[in-house]
Amino acid sequence: MAKTRNTDTRADRRRFVLRSMATVGASGAWMRSAFAQAPPGAPVHEVPADASKVQGYPLADESYGTRSQFETEVRKRFKTATAQSSWTMTPLEKGCGIITPSGLHFERSHGGTAVIDPAKHSLYVHGMVREAKKFSMAHLRRFPPMSRIMFLECSGNGLTEWSKPTMPTVQFTHGLTSASEWTGVPLATILNEAGVRPGAKWLLAEGGDAAAMTRSIPLAKALKDCFLAYGQNGEAIRPEQGYPLRLMVPGYEGNINIKWLRRIEVSDSPFMTREETSKYTDLFPSGKAVQFSFEMEAKSVITSPSGEMTLEGAGFHEITGLAWSGRGTIRRVDVSVDGGRTWRQAALQGPILPICHTRFRLPWQWDGKEAILQSRCIDDTGYVQPTLGQLIAVRGLDGPLGSIYHLNAIQSWHVATDGKVTNVHHY
Amino acid sequence: MAKTRNTDTRADRRRFVLRSMATVGASGAWMRSAFAQAPPGAPVHEVPADASKVQGYPLADESYGTRSQFETEVRKRFKTATAQSSWTMTPLEKGCGIITPSGLHFERSHGGTAVIDPAKHSLYVHGMVREAKKFSMAHLRRFPPMSRIMFLECSGNGLTEWSKPTMPTVQFTHGLTSASEWTGVPLATILNEAGVRPGAKWLLAEGGDAAAMTRSIPLAKALKDCFLAYGQNGEAIRPEQGYPLRLMVPGYEGNINIKWLRRIEVSDSPFMTREETSKYTDLFPSGKAVQFSFEMEAKSVITSPSGEMTLEGAGFHEITGLAWSGRGTIRRVDVSVDGGRTWRQAALQGPILPICHTRFRLPWQWDGKEAILQSRCIDDTGYVQPTLGQLIAVRGLDGPLGSIYHLNAIQSWHVATDGKVTNVHHY
Repeated sequence: MAKTRNTDTRADRRRFVLRSMATVGASGAWMRSAFAQAPPGAPVHEVPADASKVQGYPLADESYGTRSQFETEVRKRFKTATAQSSWTMTPLEKGCGIITPSGLHFERSHGGTAVIDPAKHSLYVHGMVREAKKFSMAHLRRFPPMSRIMFLECSGNGLTEWSKPTMPTVQFTHGLTSASEWTGVPLATILNEAGVRPGAKWLLAEGGDAAAMTRSIPLAKALKDCFLAYGQNGEAIRPEQGYPLRLMVPGYEGNINIKWLRRIEVSDSPFMTREETSKYTDLFPSGKAVQFSFEMEAKSVITSPSGEMTLEGAGFHEITGLAWSGRGTIRRVDVSVDGGRTWRQAALQGPILPICHTRFRLPWQWDGKEAILQSRCIDDTGYVQPTLGQLIAVRGLDGPLGSIYHLNAIQSWHVATDGKVTNVHHY
Repeated sequence: MAKTRNTDTRADRRRFVLRSMATVGASGAWMRSAFAQAPPGAPVHEVPADASKVQGYPLADESYGTRSQFETEVRKRFKTATAQSSWTMTPLEKGCGIITPSGLHFERSHGGTAVIDPAKHSLYVHGMVREAKKFSMAHLRRFPPMSRIMFLECSGNGLTEWSKPTMPTVQFTHGLTSASEWTGVPLATILNEAGVRPGAKWLLAEGGDAAAMTRSIPLAKALKDCFLAYGQNGEAIRPEQGYPLRLMVPGYEGNINIKWLRRIEVSDSPFMTREETSKYTDLFPSGKAVQFSFEMEAKSVITSPSGEMTLEGAGFHEITGLAWSGRGTIRRVDVSVDGGRTWRQAALQGPILPICHTRFRLPWQWDGKEAILQSRCIDDTGYVQPTLGQLIAVRGLDGPLGSIYHLNAIQSWHVATDGKVTNVHHY
């Protein structure tokens, strides 16, 4: 639909290297040593002039497939912190459908990716329970599991965008959200094994990573729909998603979905951990800070056309993007091409699932004039995605980096007469 | 739920090598050279005694993630043909949810995996059209796409199982089915561009692989729901799935979903290609052979417990599996633990989508005695999955290898008193 001008010279260089390697041959061989830092995820095969005139490469006796050598999408790191306490972002502009490939699911770690042998890992459940219990992974896998296709979003998604547009692409403005099919055991099942004592109202979830990441979760939420995931997109969850066990808290901000989960403590009050006092609170203009702002509010973004793309000229273009809500199901997405003056309802593509990315699409005849593209979603609670002005009016800009968390405002993309798309603020 | 005894020594050996490599160190380094033939799909990291006491490994500036070094599931090849004309099968017993990881999606090729540069690939549409047209990949990507989560099944799935149980595991009895979220352009859109002429009733789809795989498809089906896929599970379709373009024919046998699609010819009659005369016909006892038996009938299988697993003892075990129908949506799955004498209705896990894997679950208290586990599905046309006896009564066993295609009978797993599960025929 839109031509992407890739300004990333690393990717260009890598593609060049790939072509060169393809030329020198070594059909079917694995030649990854050159890609130690940025593996393309693909073996390199010779490219015949006409693939129908030569045998294809053989099917291996045992294999775990990789993507094509021509595909080079990568997560990119947001470089304001160390490489251990860091983010990498999903290239939403390259996505299709609602599933994020596991290899491109965003990452957020406070202490790097923990390396844990599942045969030695266990979950300890204690505190206000009838009997403290330790569960091995093998034990957890014997309980009846459930699966759910849902999004995870970092509450810091878009954190630099409050005051002015700072990031060139949707990968950097919105790429801290991804969706997978997750599988695991309902937390209620495990709590029932230990036996929650009367008076319990909260629990602490603790990760086994270097940050010993800890968050408090209301017991009611834990019993309602939380689960302990060991599966992602049909296989084991990925190391950077908390292998071998992650607490899933549907609709809540990403960091509460504790990775490398090793301990759950039941209590009658929240634990006031570092992550919910110094971090992950929302400072308001009055000087008060809101703690435990759990749910990710409804949000949407146009992923194509989006920043750094260039439209190939006037005429037909499809506008597409994603919408999601931590409170329920997306009911409607409207799209504007005139900066919010007029709106048209977009089509929603099925399956439309609660607490999941929902893809929207709208055909657009571009007249070749300047345009400002926006999307606005409504979830099944009736909540309407706000403009940035509406959000700032309530939240202010007084946080240390502006109101850094929970930016869910309408995104604006400016289309110039030459077709170039840029990130702008327009409200 | 059930302990798997892996009899595959290659996988064991590889795991041993991985552990050894982890021991010698090189934290974060890519050490793939040893895995040229069977890459485990993971870099090897040192495993600390307590991951919370050391920094995790850093997030890369650019990355495409891989699975954990402890995960070793692989597709396995069914070795009755050359490695180019061959099958590899999905390890269904290790799956969870309904999505198949792209790296474990089954493969079926008649001439190996074609290597095609998408920048040079095109689709030619001709025959009974107003104007023959050639579409580049860039051109195809400008049309409004659609996504659909659906299964693909090879019509030869289970082909050796007609006369007697021959395969030890569900990977080999049923692993020629997989499910992905596919994205692409409706075929109707492209046919409309070329303009189908009056009188047209069929089309030919041709692949650009060494086999120039060709099949005839009714025009009505093409216009109803076929699409040209370039996306799979949120990224480009995998090389072995037809990169860069595959014809998706929802519910029809896998081979009609032509990979590496390069040509569509519109006609007033079927083309009677090699693949639909010598192959992919169903010979009946009368001596007549049915051509164009397109739809995959409703089918289900228990994936756990399944062949070569060993139950850890009497008591609770969950029975789970997959059901699917090429004709619509799975409405109900019943499970028997006594070889079909009595049945209990299993729970279906959402989302329940048409022409898609649907996961079923049933809790089971095993009394420690011999048992025969079976599942039987019903789709929304009212079709009931048959017993093997019912299927043989209609189809006979007269094909060159038995009635090789379209085996959708109820599968039986025998549970011995020692918990060992084996593939049996029981009807």
